Order: sequence, then structure tokens, then C-alpha cells
Amino acid sequence: MASSILTSSKFSPFSSPSIKSSLFLPSTSLPFPSSKSPITFPSFPSKSFTKPLLISSSLNPNPPSPHRRPPYIPNHIPDPNYVRIFDTTLRDGEQSPGATLTSKEKLDIARQLAKLGVDIIEAGFPAASKDDFEAVKTIAKEVGNASDENGYVPVICGLSRCNEKDIKTAWEAVKYAKRPRIHTFIATSGIHLEYKLRKSKEEVLDIARSMVRFARSLGCDDVEFSPEDAGRSDREFLYEILGEVIKAGATTLNIPDTVGITMPSEFGQLIADIKANTPGIENVIISTHCQNDLGLSTANTIAGACAGARQVEVTINGIGERAGNASLEEVVMALKCRGEHALGGLYTGINTRHIVMASKMVEEYTGLHVQPHKAIVGANAFAHESGIHQDGMLKHKGTYEIISPEDIGLERSNEAGIVLGKLSGRHALSDRLKELGYELDDEQLGNIFWRFKAVAEQKKRVTDADLIALVSDEVFQPEFVWKLHDLQVTCGTLGLSTATVKLIDADGREHVACSVGTGPVDSAYKAVDLIIKEPVSLLEYSMNAVTEGIDAIATTRVLIRPEKSHISTHALTGELVQRTFSGTGAGMDIVVSSVKAYIGAINKMLGFKEQYPTKASTERTPVSA
Amino acid sequence: MASSILTSSKFSPFSSPSIKSSLFLPSTSLPFPSSKSPITFPSFPSKSFTKPLLISSSLNPNPPSPHRRPPYIPNHIPDPNYVRIFDTTLRDGEQSPGATLTSKEKLDIARQLAKLGVDIIEAGFPAASKDDFEAVKTIAKEVGNASDENGYVPVICGLSRCNEKDIKTAWEAVKYAKRPRIHTFIATSGIHLEYKLRKSKEEVLDIARSMVRFARSLGCDDVEFSPEDAGRSDREFLYEILGEVIKAGATTLNIPDTVGITMPSEFGQLIADIKANTPGIENVIISTHCQNDLGLSTANTIAGACAGARQVEVTINGIGERAGNASLEEVVMALKCRGEHALGGLYTGINTRHIVMASKMVEEYTGLHVQPHKAIVGANAFAHESGIHQDGMLKHKGTYEIISPEDIGLERSNEAGIVLGKLSGRHALSDRLKELGYELDDEQLGNIFWRFKAVAEQKKRVTDADLIALVSDEVFQPEFVWKLHDLQVTCGTLGLSTATVKLIDADGREHVACSVGTGPVDSAYKAVDLIIKEPVSLLEYSMNAVTEGIDAIATTRVLIRPEKSHISTHALTGELVQRTFSGTGAGMDIVVSSVKAYIGAINKMLGFKEQYPTKASTERTPVSA
Repeated sequence: MASSILTSSKFSPFSSPSIKSSLFLPSTSLPFPSSKSPITFPSFPSKSFTKPLLISSSLNPNPPSPHRRPPYIPNHIPDPNYVRIFDTTLRDGEQSPGATLTSKEKLDIARQLAKLGVDIIEAGFPAASKDDFEAVKTIAKEVGNASDENGYVPVICGLSRCNEKDIKTAWEAVKYAKRPRIHTFIATSGIHLEYKLRKSKEEVLDIARSMVRFARSLGCDDVEFSPEDAGRSDREFLYEILGEVIKAGATTLNIPDTVGITMPSEFGQLIADIKANTPGIENVIISTHCQNDLGLSTANTIAGACAGARQVEVTINGIGERAGNASLEEVVMALKCRGEHALGGLYTGINTRHIVMASKMVEEYTGLHVQPHKAIVGANAFAHESGIHQDGMLKHKGTYEIISPEDIGLERSNEAGIVLGKLSGRHALSDRLKELGYELDDEQLGNIFWRFKAVAEQKKRVTDADLIALVSDEVFQPEFVWKLHDLQVTCGTLGLSTATVKLIDADGREHVACSVGTGPVDSAYKAVDLIIKEPVSLLEYSMNAVTEGIDAIATTRVLIRPEKSHISTHALTGELVQRTFSGTGAGMDIVVSSVKAYIGAINKMLGFKEQYPTKASTERTPVSA
Repeated sequence: MASSILTSSKFSPFSSPSIKSSLFLPSTSLPFPSSKSPITFPSFPSKSFTKPLLISSSLNPNPPSPHRRPPYIPNHIPDPNYVRIFDTTLRDGEQSPGATLTSKEKLDIARQLAKLGVDIIEAGFPAASKDDFEAVKTIAKEVGNASDENGYVPVICGLSRCNEKDIKTAWEAVKYAKRPRIHTFIATSGIHLEYKLRKSKEEVLDIARSMVRFARSLGCDDVEFSPEDAGRSDREFLYEILGEVIKAGATTLNIPDTVGITMPSEFGQLIADIKANTPGIENVIISTHCQNDLGLSTANTIAGACAGARQVEVTINGIGERAGNASLEEVVMALKCRGEHALGGLYTGINTRHIVMASKMVEEYTGLHVQPHKAIVGANAFAHESGIHQDGMLKHKGTYEIISPEDIGLERSNEAGIVLGKLSGRHALSDRLKELGYELDDEQLGNIFWRFKAVAEQKKRVTDADLIALVSDEVFQPEFVWKLHDLQVTCGTLGLSTATVKLIDADGREHVACSVGTGPVDSAYKAVDLIIKEPVSLLEYSMNAVTEGIDAIATTRVLIRPEKSHISTHALTGELVQRTFSGTGAGMDIVVSSVKAYIGAINKMLGFKEQYPTKASTERTPVSA
């Protein structure tokens, strides 16, 4: 068999302390040895998952405990094995079609990210619109100043293109945080220089250098720089521009595989090359940002960390443009399950028990559903086709389960998922919601309880799925402008459905309208349109009731686009884009839940501020300052 | 910078011709060199994606054209760069909770897999139930004998546990194919031996050897063997058992990462170790089978191929138990996009233009939806947040797009996705459906056209989404036993909805019933239950209408479980499981579509044969023979 001993010739006797943790350089670029010449680098251990002792003990005799988060210094991590988690759900994730989030929703998600223990929250692209600016500023003020008992407080980061206006706007938004960061980027690949920027390498180099310096000059001592499309950029130019921005004051260098084209071995090699060839790289943190176009983002991210990156950019549920980004939950759980044994001791500071709640919150707010077979957070991730003798036959959980559901904040429900009935009290409800991963405040719990009792009156068994639907309807809702009061509909195979709706506006006034349509939802939405008079297009409509029995609560989700308003700037392409808004509604009647979802989306749209702030509403006007 | 030249010390001068293609051995198990000692193996090329000439030219001076499929020989592939695609959608994919497929649906999918050019179709687990047996046999007879003009015909494979009864049953099902294969497996990891099998290593070794020999003795010259949970098995035992089954006549050795726990570097190393240490391995094909529990299945599969595997087991959309398997579309597109430049010339025989249709068909039949940010086949995979000046601003497609939608069979629709109206003819409809990836026969097209006209009468703009809904409702439907004739419903915020339904049975008789319920669907389903009288539980209910405007066609999907019947055997755990059945229905009225979906699921259940065949219905009774 292949030796599991690391031969000394593969060691570098010169390895500096700062790269002690970079034990494993992924590379497929080695010739495959014949069976007559057994390979000499360490094999997968022949005893299942015994720690490769020789490696960790010889290079790192006293590995630090993986359970303490090292103190935050922008350009240095005292523990070489610690990998920072940079969550960009609120920025890159929100760029997904239809995933627009309001300020309030972003704040909720940022709070959840802080509970998870994310090191850096990229809260948005402040120059995109007034609402983006306000969201980042609010998060900087609130989440960016809430230290826990161990002194942990997340860095709040704002994205900006490489121009003074964007950078200044970003700074105006993040500066309120205890640890503010500006993240600026410019494309460096040939194809982007030629077709997008229409600039020469020299021009780009000059812009990058001067804009990083400008960011530092504002008083920001934590500046991240990304060479966009690094995966396709000329290597020598990459080393040069990265070296220059380090000199200009960048503290983190993020290496994006913008189009998701690299193989893990290539991406690991890219990080290793940058680490080996960029002047001054030992004084900064290298970061990964992997898109998922070929389904390799998690593997690329891990390959990058193995090659020396100590920050990884991820999103909850892996959302993002096109095929999205590396999933926080996949990267974090891979490091948690295999960091010690297979990845040289790498670890993160994430409290994984908050993953399920974060995943559900992001799914609800963005309207981007998670497929049942999504790793870690999919509905089937921990489910086997239920066997009649499951308890007897599956004699040991470990035979098919490598992660315990409890690790990510999911309690095993009993077989039928039935937990509560109309005699269940507030305490039982609260306990079950906690087991499902929801941590609610008293007011939220009070509202849920009230609705739970109403459901339990009509339905003898209230399931987990019903509870989840209630939470999504009660907790994950925009502030209301319009509210559904009454609805009556007739429909059927004859066509020409008729609906009558009564809505209440913010001032408590009642409005009634009726309409016919091709179906019950069509007629009801037309009646709503007659009252609200906001011209919107309905882009998507979906409904879910994962439950036993159709007397369940169904959750409807819609996505709408205003016809002319709500323009925003896309960070990467610079295009003006029209925002879209999702809404959800839950109810035992699917027509009622459909109307609630529609009104919810309209409320979200009406609550999204379109214009830049005026001098009256903020201390300084970020664009004109 | 790091040298891009392969130093000779990394070469094995003894590399045999059969491993010429195994150029790249992925491994993270190398010490990371300090920046003072630049690494000497080939770096990621500094010019974007120029072919690493030194590697391919020195080891493989005349790479074969990547566009010809080599002739099929069970234990040998004449072209060392060719990777066989083994699709297990119908077996492992169908094990997903709720994904039960009928024989007819399996046949449809198998035909689509043959269009894709899949090398091996694992058609099912014939010993699971009569319907599984019949499905495999039908596929073997029909798809397994339909050669194309180039002589291509897929291998039809049946799974069996390591016992004579299962193997004989599998052979009875697959033997009708031109190229039949039996795939048998037994667990080899310590945890499975101890807790699942309760057998010693010697016993397992003996069973494996004798059962492979038994499979060969039946006349099957193409036998695949899998050591289940290989990723956690003792290495020496693995080499030993694999060596023994090769001697016994196995032609393909499949290495499953059953619990999805390995890192790509480890899995590549596992394949490399097996290749280096198993006696007789040069005479068989090594295969990968990677579960996706940590989101690494695609990367692990590619790592396995780079390390010498020449068969990869995948499923459409990556479905399968828990977090599923490696996705066919991700693995195939990664090899297509990067095989030549980054993976030593590896290629497959897949006609990627049939991917979209395969993905949609599997999504419809299994009821397992694909998330919008799923790589390659997700709804957003090729969508950017739509920009107002998109054409002007995105100056070159290649700036953000590495795969052209046309490559996978998806035509770019015009901006609004509006294509057809009531004046559109059959030809226009047919053309647009083809552009969307659907290839329908004349009868199917005729039915769709008739319904299209009915929709176009009510709706001025018939969108792509409407067409897709119609196709799913018309083409992807079980054979009907019960059919909806009429429905009338009232509902609203008052509760107590009332529904009246009229159904037609297989003999054309009308049945009418009415019921009250908590909502329109609840009352309608209760009315259906009063007529059909089949006790079922509703497990899931969902609806989708991705479209502009609520006057769209909504597609409802339900999942039901019969209360006592439809028992099947789970291949891996040996448990008896209760089948579940999905149904879909489309209509402009969501209550109508909901009822159609429910009746569809019941029809599917009624069409699924429960018992093993009697002597009268097959040539031989597979279980008692």
C-alpha cells in the first residue's frame, strides 16, 4: 500500500510560522505514478479517519484549541489554522434575480449572521440605492456594535466599485461599526479589461492603487481589494496589482473565481501561486470567492483554504447570481467534520447550531427556495425513505449519517412529526419552535401563539410544517401598509371565477372591490389591484404545504416587479436594474394565502425607499459629500 | 513565479500505457512550500486557459479526438481518456423520499438517457418489487436494443444485493438487453460490518467472491461490484476484496463514498491507492459513486476521474437519498468545459443538448424540484438580474458566461419570454417547444396543441412558462384511471369552503360528490376521497406558476402515501419501505390544478403493480426460480 508517512523531501525546511497551517496544497497537476512506484505523500488514512498524526505533530506540535476565536486584527490572524467566514448573503446573495431584501429584512439576517458568529458581514453595496445605503448603515450601527461576552463583534463591510464616490458612500455607511471595512474591486482579466472596462492594464493598476489609498485616507484601516475575474487574469499582472494594493494599504486580498470556471486543483494552485509570488503577501489575509457555475464552489473554497486562504466568502444556502456562491453551511460543516483529520486542523468560529434558522430566514426573505436534496439544509438532507422497521433495521445512526441534525440546530422530530394540539400551551409551542431552530422574541411568540390556537381549533394535529408556515407568515413579513380583511371567491371548471376583497389601509380605512378572472387567484388579485392601484407585474407564484393532510397551512410566495420605479445599480455590471419583490402568505385556504402573499409583496415594495437620502434624513449626504 | 514546467523528478518513467490519461493526481496531502522555495509542479497556466502543452504533449503526443465514442468492451476502454457515464437516476435517484417512478415513467427517462448518450443506465433494483422488476425488463428490451447509426446502445444494468436470489432476479430483468450488466454490492467498512451486516471480513470476502462468480455463471459477462462505504473501509481489506472479485470475474469496480464524507483530495487518493495496490486492477474499469452530503460530490467525482476512474456514477439533477449524488449535468459540463485544458484530455460521450429535457423530465416525474441557483439546470443558472440597458452594458457574453445555454439545449428566449398567441399555429408551437428542449411525438404535440389553443383563447400572451406547464400536465402524466370532469368551489376568509366534484372512471361512468373543508383544496380532496375510496395520506403539496401575470397556468404537485399497501425493499438498508407517489396537474384555476394533481397521484398509485409477477405474466418467476 501507499505509505502514509510524509517523506522529508516534500517538506520545506524554510516554512515560516505564518504558513504552518497551509499543510495541504491541492493539485491535480502531478503525474500519476505507476503501480510499481508507490506514491510517497500521505494517503487517505487506512484506519477510518484516524488523525494523520505525523503531519500535524511534526509541523504544528501544539495546535491551538479549535474552539477559541482569535482576536481580530485586520491584516493578521494570530492562529494560523483559523479561517475567517465572510458572509455575503446580503450583497452577492441579494443580487440573485428576485431576492431583493428590505432594510428591515437585512437587519434581521445580519443579526442572525452575528448569532452564527460570522467574522465579516458584507452588508451590501451602499452606492446601489438609498435603501442599500440605509441598510448597511443600520447594520453597522446596530449589529456592528453589539459585542458578545467574549468581545466578538462582526466586521461590517460595504462593497464599492473603484471610484471615489462609491468608496466614500461605502465609508459613510460602514463607519458607524466598531470594525468597519471597505471592500473595493476592479476587473483584471483580459476579457473584462477589453469588453467591460475598456482600459489598459496600467490604467487599472493605477485606479486600484489610488482607490485603496483613498479608502485608507478616509480613516478606514480595514480595506479589502478584489481583482474581479482573477481566475481568468494574467498571472504576472495579478501579482503586480496585488503587490501594489498591499503597498497602498489593503489588508485583505480577495481572489474571486467570478465565472465559476476553475477546477479545485487550479483554484488551489492560483491561491498558492499568489501566496508564493506577490510581494508583501505575508502581511495580509488571502480570501476566496467562488461562484458555483460548475457545481464546484464548495470544493474550490476548501482548496483555497488548504492552499493558504484564511478568509472564505460564502452565502447562506449558496444563493447568488446564476448558480450562486459557495454555501456557508457546506464549507463550515466540511471544515467542522473534516478540518482536524483531513484539512490540517483548519477551523472556523461558526456556531453551527444556528445554521437551520439562518437558512430558513434567508429562504423566506429572498424567496429562493432550497431544493430537497441540497446538502446540509435541504429537506431530505437528513431523511431516509422511511422504513417500516426503521428503528430495528438501522442499527446504528453512523451507518448512513455523518452529521447529526442537532449540530446544525435541527431536532429529530418524532416519526409522524405531530407535536401539538389545541390543548398545547405557550411553553410547549416555544419549546418546539426552538427545537426547529427558531429563536423568537416574546412579541413574535405571542403573535404565533395566537394564530397557533386558531389553527388548532380547526385542525386536530398541528405539525412541524404548520408551525414553520406560521412562523414564516408572522415573523418574516414586511411592515404592513395594506392588510387583507375579508375575501370571498367562487371558482371551478366553468371558468369565470369571481372574487370580492376587503382591504384595510395604514390608516384603518376599509376598501372593497370585486372582479372576475380566469381562476380564483386571478380574480382576487385583480380585485386587489382595483384598490391598491400600484402597477406591478407578477413574475412568479408558488405555494407549499409540506405536511400530512390537506387541512394544513399552505404558504404562498409571489414575486412582483413594479412597472417603472425602484431602480438600483448592479455592482459588477454597472447596469441599472429594476428591483423585484417577494411576498409570502400562509393560511388554511390557498386563495386566502395567495392574496396575503400578493399584498405582502406590495407592502415590501412600498416600504423600499427609492431615493437617496436628503440632508434632513442623514448626517451627511453620501453622494454629494 | 512558480514554474509551469513539470520537473522530471515528478514523472514516473514506468507509467504504463493504460494510465497515460491519469495525468493529474489530486492531492492536498502535500506540505505547503514557503514562498522562498517555489513549487515545481505545473501551475495554473498564467495565460488564461492556454493548454498546458508540456504535459499533454510529453505524455500523450497524439491524443485521440474527443468526439468519438470508443467501442464498448466491459472491462476495457480502448481510449484512455474516455470517461463512461453511468446514470443511476432510475435506481439511486428513485430512492429519494417521494421520488417513486412507475414503469412507464422509467421507460421515458431511460429513452431520454439513451438520447443523452449515457453509457450505462442503471435501470433499477429488480428485487425491490414487481414494478421495479418489470421496469428494468422493459427498459432492457426496448432501450437496451435500440442501437443508433453508430452502433451505440446503452448498457442496461440492474442492482442486486450479494445474494443468489437478488442476482438471479437482476439477471432475469436485464438479460434481454444487448449489453446487460449486473451490479452487486456488499458493505466493507467496519461500522457497516459491525452494525448492519454483523459479519466478519472473511465472511464478507467469501460472499463477494462467490456472488460475483455466480453472476458470471448465469451468462452475464459484464459484472460490476461495489464495496459499500468504501470511503470508510480499511484499505488493506479493500484491496483484498477488490482483488478477489476481479479474479471471480468482475469487470467494473465501483468505489462509493456512501456517506459523502471524503474531501476531493482524499477521494482521488483512494482511487489512486486502489489503482496502485489492487492485484489485477489493470484489467478492469474503476468507477466512482459520490454522495453529496458535504456538497462535494461533483468535485470528488472529478478527482476520482483524474486519479484513474473511467466510469462515473451520476444522476440527473443530482437527486438521490439525503443530499443526493453527483449531478450528471455538472460532471459532464465540467469535463466538457475543462477536460481538455485542465483535466488531461478527459471527455465523455454525452450529447449535452439533451440535458435540459432530461432535467425537466426527471424533475416532473420525481417531484423533486431543482433550486433556482442549481448549477447548469437551475432557472437562474443563465439569468442575470435583468438590466435596463443590458444589451449595451454587457458588451461581451463571455464576460460572465462560460457555458452557452444552447450547449445544454436551452434557447435564449426573448426578453419577456412571450412567444405565442391564439393565432399561432401548430408549427410555431412545435418549434418553440423544441427550443425549450422538449422533443415530443406527434400524438403528444397534438394534445398539447389542443390545450394550447384553449389557453390562448383566455390569455392573450402564452409564455414559455405556460407551455412548460402544459407539457408537464400532458406528457408527464400517468395513465388515467380516474379523470376530473367538473368542479365547483366556494371559499374565502369565512372558512367552511364547499366543493362539488364530478369524476369519470376508467369505464366512462360519472360519479358526483360534495364536501365541506377548511379551504377549497381540502373540501375538493375530501369530495374526491368520497368517490375513489382509496385511503391515502397527503404528504406534500406545492404549486408553481413561473410566469408573467396571474392569468397563467399553475402547476400543482402533490405527494401521497397509501395507508397500507405498496411495500418495497430498500436496496442498501434491506428495510421494507412504503412507496409514495407524486402527481401533477396544470390549469388556470389553482383549485382545478390541485384536484388534477391529486387524481394524478392516485392514478399513479393505482397503476403501480404491487405483487411479484406470477408465472403467467413473465417467462420465469424471478424470485422462486
